Amino acid sequence: MALKDELDIVIPTIRNLDFLEMWRPFFQPYHLIIVQDGDPTKVIKVPEGFDYELYNRNDINRILGPKASCISFKDSACRCFGYMMSKKKYIYTIDDDCFVAKDPSGKDINALEQHIKNLLSPSTPLFFNTLYDPYREGADFVRGYPFGLREGVPTAISHGLWLNIPDYDAPTQMVKPAERNTRYVDAVMTIPKGTLFPMCGMNLAFNRELIGPAMYFGLMGDGQPIGRYDDMWAGWCCKVICDHFGYGVKTGLPYIWHSKASNPFVNLKKEYNGIFWQEQIIPFFQGVKLPKDCTTVEQCYIELSKQVKEKLSTVDPYFEKLGDAMVTWIEAWTEMNPTN
Amino acid sequence: MALKDELDIVIPTIRNLDFLEMWRPFFQPYHLIIVQDGDPTKVIKVPEGFDYELYNRNDINRILGPKASCISFKDSACRCFGYMMSKKKYIYTIDDDCFVAKDPSGKDINALEQHIKNLLSPSTPLFFNTLYDPYREGADFVRGYPFGLREGVPTAISHGLWLNIPDYDAPTQMVKPAERNTRYVDAVMTIPKGTLFPMCGMNLAFNRELIGPAMYFGLMGDGQPIGRYDDMWAGWCCKVICDHFGYGVKTGLPYIWHSKASNPFVNLKKEYNGIFWQEQIIPFFQGVKLPKDCTTVEQCYIELSKQVKEKLSTVDPYFEKLGDAMVTWIEAWTEMNPTN
Repeated sequence: MALKDELDIVIPTIRNLDFLEMWRPFFQPYHLIIVQDGDPTKVIKVPEGFDYELYNRNDINRILGPKASCISFKDSACRCFGYMMSKKKYIYTIDDDCFVAKDPSGKDINALEQHIKNLLSPSTPLFFNTLYDPYREGADFVRGYPFGLREGVPTAISHGLWLNIPDYDAPTQMVKPAERNTRYVDAVMTIPKGTLFPMCGMNLAFNRELIGPAMYFGLMGDGQPIGRYDDMWAGWCCKVICDHFGYGVKTGLPYIWHSKASNPFVNLKKEYNGIFWQEQIIPFFQGVKLPKDCTTVEQCYIELSKQVKEKLSTVDPYFEKLGDAMVTWIEAWTEMNPTN
Repeated sequence: MALKDELDIVIPTIRNLDFLEMWRPFFQPYHLIIVQDGDPTKVIKVPEGFDYELYNRNDINRILGPKASCISFKDSACRCFGYMMSKKKYIYTIDDDCFVAKDPSGKDINALEQHIKNLLSPSTPLFFNTLYDPYREGADFVRGYPFGLREGVPTAISHGLWLNIPDYDAPTQMVKPAERNTRYVDAVMTIPKGTLFPMCGMNLAFNRELIGPAMYFGLMGDGQPIGRYDDMWAGWCCKVICDHFGYGVKTGLPYIWHSKASNPFVNLKKEYNGIFWQEQIIPFFQGVKLPKDCTTVEQCYIELSKQVKEKLSTVDPYFEKLGDAMVTWIEAWTEMNPTN
């Protein structure tokens, strides 16, 4: 099968997708799934020549019925509806304020191609390799790396980075308004087993077959007490489930060019609760144990939802609601993706 | 106190130290501890103007008496005698076939300066930061990084890398005789808690006060069934002890230029047993638990020596001998470094 038949690009947006012009040479062969956030009567223009399907809130409500409650509104968390609708093996998701970055030689970076490389080559979560990705050309496992671990494990997630505007929280944005990420670090690495990381949804690819049902971006935005933690939530959940199954998570290349910082005051409002809550959420996820009889991602996710309700609802009643939404998400996922 | 009064450079060697000429601008302010391996009657020439002390095998035997048995002979593992003799807070150790590397702009890299930066800034072993070292200029903690962890922890070890000849094992050298490391990865990162790594002794710095007594390079070389695992052994032991105390281990910058590959046939002979043994050594170290009442590095190391004898002597009787040598090392260390 051609790779273009195995990957969908998911884009959440509230505006015309002019940014696709810049990505045309890289994205045009692929199918786009556009998830329109906000006012569903607004018409989103997509540049000519792209193959796409577009869902607005009315579509989401119509397709999922009451289960649409698990899909966030007025928050880029809505993008996970696109993951659910895809029937492909791989997903690449990108924000509409992310442009093509240049490598140090001045060449345009084909971010999608690098993500595919990351996903198609194994990961090494069980032992650290000091020369970074050992499967990359010009690199290998260094002396002292156990030979029994050199086959690696399947890669579930490829987390790409951002030049120009770094992905900072509101307090850091406020303290360092002028900071730009200008450092091109020419590396891809596996995040070790047992280690959590802050997963950003701006420039992210994953294997839907391996981890799709755990890639839920939570309840954020309109009517919720929190925003801008959608991708973080998905990252924490996915990492503990990847660790459970022995799948790999990579971070590093490719870079995109993040064009514009979002408003730090607006961001602080959205993040406010999350800043407090995450101090307890992180120890919770660091302590999560998934029973051995959880043999599918769906089972793991339902188990995780129970632990969230049990252990985090003391932090805030919101987590009771989030736990329920996690279950609804899995029900909707199963409905949209029936197994044979 | 000036930094030059706080750091010693330890160099193991069997030949004249002409390579120091290239390092003169960077090393000359510091005191060198040269550990001469092999024939003690050979005279090692040190370029003029360097401040140094030199120990050959006769010196080691005279100073340590019967405890000299824990210091390897005809193997660069002998360098750890220099760590023991130093009275400084920091150690930098470098091989005599390592030259000054150039950064991508063509500028000479002051490896020592970068190591000092690494050691003087905190580490972040409890949560992964996707923009690498958050304390570096132009970088910070990304969105989603718990604020409660941003103070970091003290850094015990700074592991530098190598351009040109990569640090490969004999099988990889044989399979890829022409491979050169040409990729300058502009990053420093903390190796997460609970993750082991292959520590190379070629270009390594550490805080002697925090981790010194665990920086034992084992029994290698002459009369031993193994070589070229000296730094690996030290790395495994140091990492579990750093994890126990909550100290950080960094890897990445600085690079040195590794000039010449060692003979892969000779290396295979030295490594042969280690290649098999490490398949059981790694799971052993991954499972090591140090009791809470081990409150000094020395106590941890003695405890570790017991576990080595108990759990690894079934792999090979050598580990019985190594366990004893670990105890002798701590006795010698304590004798040379009496606490007030």
